[in-house]
Amino acid sequence: MNEFGLILEYFTWPIKDPSVTIGVGDDAAVFSLEKGYQVVTTTDTLTEGIHFSANTSAKDIAQKSLAVNLSDVAAMGAKPKYFTLAISLPKIDKSWLKEFSDSLRHLSEQYEVSLVGGDTTNGPLSITITMIGTIESSKALTRSGARPGDGVYVSGTIGDAGFCFWKLTNGIVPSSYELKRLNCPIPRVELGLALKNLASACIDVSDGLEQDLSHILKSSSVGAIIEVEKIPVSEALHIHIEDTNDWTIPLCGGDDYELCFTIPEGNKELFKKVLEPCNVNITRIGVVTESLGLQIEGFDGPRSSYQHF
Amino acid sequence: MNEFGLILEYFTWPIKDPSVTIGVGDDAAVFSLEKGYQVVTTTDTLTEGIHFSANTSAKDIAQKSLAVNLSDVAAMGAKPKYFTLAISLPKIDKSWLKEFSDSLRHLSEQYEVSLVGGDTTNGPLSITITMIGTIESSKALTRSGARPGDGVYVSGTIGDAGFCFWKLTNGIVPSSYELKRLNCPIPRVELGLALKNLASACIDVSDGLEQDLSHILKSSSVGAIIEVEKIPVSEALHIHIEDTNDWTIPLCGGDDYELCFTIPEGNKELFKKVLEPCNVNITRIGVVTESLGLQIEGFDGPRSSYQHF
Repeated sequence: MNEFGLILEYFTWPIKDPSVTIGVGDDAAVFSLEKGYQVVTTTDTLTEGIHFSANTSAKDIAQKSLAVNLSDVAAMGAKPKYFTLAISLPKIDKSWLKEFSDSLRHLSEQYEVSLVGGDTTNGPLSITITMIGTIESSKALTRSGARPGDGVYVSGTIGDAGFCFWKLTNGIVPSSYELKRLNCPIPRVELGLALKNLASACIDVSDGLEQDLSHILKSSSVGAIIEVEKIPVSEALHIHIEDTNDWTIPLCGGDDYELCFTIPEGNKELFKKVLEPCNVNITRIGVVTESLGLQIEGFDGPRSSYQHF
Repeated sequence: MNEFGLILEYFTWPIKDPSVTIGVGDDAAVFSLEKGYQVVTTTDTLTEGIHFSANTSAKDIAQKSLAVNLSDVAAMGAKPKYFTLAISLPKIDKSWLKEFSDSLRHLSEQYEVSLVGGDTTNGPLSITITMIGTIESSKALTRSGARPGDGVYVSGTIGDAGFCFWKLTNGIVPSSYELKRLNCPIPRVELGLALKNLASACIDVSDGLEQDLSHILKSSSVGAIIEVEKIPVSEALHIHIEDTNDWTIPLCGGDDYELCFTIPEGNKELFKKVLEPCNVNITRIGVVTESLGLQIEGFDGPRSSYQHF
């Protein structure tokens, strides 16, 4: 099977989005933008041995590759619409490719994003997705709009993926819930869209809450106080924290793909209404302050979020 | 040095394009599109040991990574404008990074494309660039518009990169011109822009003239006759072909990044005028036919263009 056969068999699906004029199969893809919209774009790579282990299933790898990119677009308050896939494969393994392709297609249909192009190369297993979304002009949710007095919020529970990873590296069998949270994160696309007229700043929690929230604070030239006791964690992780008195996992664990955002106090009531249909818990964990830096109340242990090198 | 320091030092440049609202440093980049334009996007990966050898300089790797993507956008007749860079690095080598960054920045300034985002990961050396361009709505040059009677054309000379690669694998020292053609291809951006109102179909020659032209023919449901003697080749390659009577290199060599396109006879005169400022030779090598398939006159030896696996 050559590259063209491979693309045709595993990576060419009917495109339902009428804004796509040319999809997979030409030198480049072409799509149209609605009037009054801007383009949002992000790229993330997942590599075997770094971002997932050799025994991760093709299904989960596909899902996570797409989810982490959807999550970045969600953090901008934008609607993900198109993506390209650059995949490096050590060999042509048809059953692996079928599982990967089915999973990618399933998730892309669920989130209504179209695969419009890509590249397949021979090499160590690695997936780079570039996600392109759209947003009403000047509505993008950046990291730089947090103001003193805004509440600091997170979605879902924090630290599940980190707790799963900690268990795996310590020879403890994680629960299926924890494995799912590590391998198949749920991108908060609907929440991002709902936040775009409400939040003052937003980021997705990929490297660790403490590090990611610090990016908002730095970009916005503000500080924040958060209380560890308010960070929403799963029951199992809560027990682990009670036992160890160590909040490192939810603070620095990373790979959560929840959203961390700031909301001006004035938007608080509206915010409750708008978020109802998003089907995800939202928790206020602190407040933005004028004095710089992130103050963490309730834990003064060592902190070190994910480093890429 | 962590990822953020690395991005700040090597991959954050002032963006001059006012259409970019948010560049490197947020969850995703944001840019605006001019009214009446569509978005064009393509992705290509270059991996050490597959697309370039371990002794290729950082400067050349950067240049080629960008050039191959610019070339795909050029083949659509579009203007390249923004790109993301996903780079996988085995280690932090500051002098390598500086050379790579300087080269990438230099070429991106030359072609007026803005680096708007990306991802840096730890792993075997590999570069994936996603190039985004713009084109007037419905003006994109696809592979599917060739019609019987159209002339078949190529830009520049064909086979130089393949000849260089052949020399390297046979222990012959290539000329500096040939090395440059292999490692630093010139994307035909200006030519692509000039062709958009003239050509009926276009592709960039990356996998080999025979294979790439065949893509146009298949997409357009037509055939073509080309004459090998008309394929423009360098003087040195011409001597090699006379000696061996073997046209495999220009037909199947790949990595040329010249454009191969078809022009309706009626556009021939206009075409000569429009192409003058493009500063690249254009050669008519054959004609599109109704009967399917690619007929190659003057050579019936074995042919096998680049296979990705």
